[in-house]
Amino acid sequence: MPTSSNGQFRGHAIAVDVVLFTIQGGTLKALLVKRRQPPHRGAWALPGGIVGTDESVDDAALRELQEETNIGNIYLEQLYTFGEPARDPRGRVITVAYYALVNWQQFQLKARQRVTEADWFPVKRLPPLAFDHRRIVDYALERLQHKINYTTVAFQLLPRQFTLTELQGSYEVILSQRLDKRNFRRKMLQLGILKGTREFKAHGRQRPARLYTFTEPKVVKLQEKGIIVPF
Amino acid sequence: MPTSSNGQFRGHAIAVDVVLFTIQGGTLKALLVKRRQPPHRGAWALPGGIVGTDESVDDAALRELQEETNIGNIYLEQLYTFGEPARDPRGRVITVAYYALVNWQQFQLKARQRVTEADWFPVKRLPPLAFDHRRIVDYALERLQHKINYTTVAFQLLPRQFTLTELQGSYEVILSQRLDKRNFRRKMLQLGILKGTREFKAHGRQRPARLYTFTEPKVVKLQEKGIIVPF
Repeated sequence: MPTSSNGQFRGHAIAVDVVLFTIQGGTLKALLVKRRQPPHRGAWALPGGIVGTDESVDDAALRELQEETNIGNIYLEQLYTFGEPARDPRGRVITVAYYALVNWQQFQLKARQRVTEADWFPVKRLPPLAFDHRRIVDYALERLQHKINYTTVAFQLLPRQFTLTELQGSYEVILSQRLDKRNFRRKMLQLGILKGTREFKAHGRQRPARLYTFTEPKVVKLQEKGIIVPF
Repeated sequence: MPTSSNGQFRGHAIAVDVVLFTIQGGTLKALLVKRRQPPHRGAWALPGGIVGTDESVDDAALRELQEETNIGNIYLEQLYTFGEPARDPRGRVITVAYYALVNWQQFQLKARQRVTEADWFPVKRLPPLAFDHRRIVDYALERLQHKINYTTVAFQLLPRQFTLTELQGSYEVILSQRLDKRNFRRKMLQLGILKGTREFKAHGRQRPARLYTFTEPKVVKLQEKGIIVPF
């Protein structure tokens, strides 16, 4: 513990909490885990925990997610630090919140061996959450709705190959609004970050839709390409 | 101090650090204070300090700024939480960084009674800074350059009444690039957040320029008005 001559240094616990989003069956969902210890024992909460003495805050977020859900190697983005004095009944715990998006199919494969009781819940119909976690989810959703307009973060929801309809669907689910198909396709293709493959996906009786891949390996700001996308 | 059965809870100190920007003489500057205590005694650093046990993190940032620079009642925005284990030689100190912008003239009036040695430095020619504060300033500048494109945050740099040339100047200084005058004015006026006054400001031999005021009391996202401004 650091100390100083003015006696102002006090110990706090630092937690991390992760809002993990996915889209399943046309619904935006968040991952929750059931708390096994007090306070709020038995309540649903965001995956997370206390930051260890020797690990960075970012590393702690990845570790907690891995430990509680067996999801690893994903893109996490720091969201906000929540530091109200009374947010944890045990004492002063400040939490650094993160959010991330995963593709539903990929998660299914990796989550087989997880230990903690965990489940996906529709963001619009969440159960009561422990601590201020509901506020954190609301904040994460707001950030996500904002960020998909000028970054490629939404692509993390998709499989490696996807149709433009699937891409538009992920935007519509996040924004809770329908988008104009022609405008969406024109703007998306203009960005130069999609590559058409030679493969097609059948959609019932409709004409098979071309599958695309994403040319950028990471989440990028579209502004850096000189483009902002107000759909 | 909170404790838990798995023994993982450890005390950390939580600090706040504030990057305060202003524009003076056509130059973007940041406020630095001289450290009076080790570590890095005598070095320049961001205004900030340790979060008290009973105050929120946001309140701590405002309090530290007030105590060290006598600047109060300003808009602070949380920037990022820096949590590398080795960032402070005294032990584990995680810092929640904030940034803010102030109008130079208003600061001049308020800063008279400040105690700590403090000064404005050009962001492009900063002295060596204590801890990881240089990284925090760089991050704040990046955020600011991004945010002025879709929020009204830059208006905090201006006096209550300003000319469109002064407004454009603040954007140019932050972005380090010249902007097209006609485009800038057209886009700014389209936003519906500026109100022309009946007053004018003389500019040497040029035609006096109309003074404008800002119709929104707070920092707002322009996206909420359905508009994004890629200048």
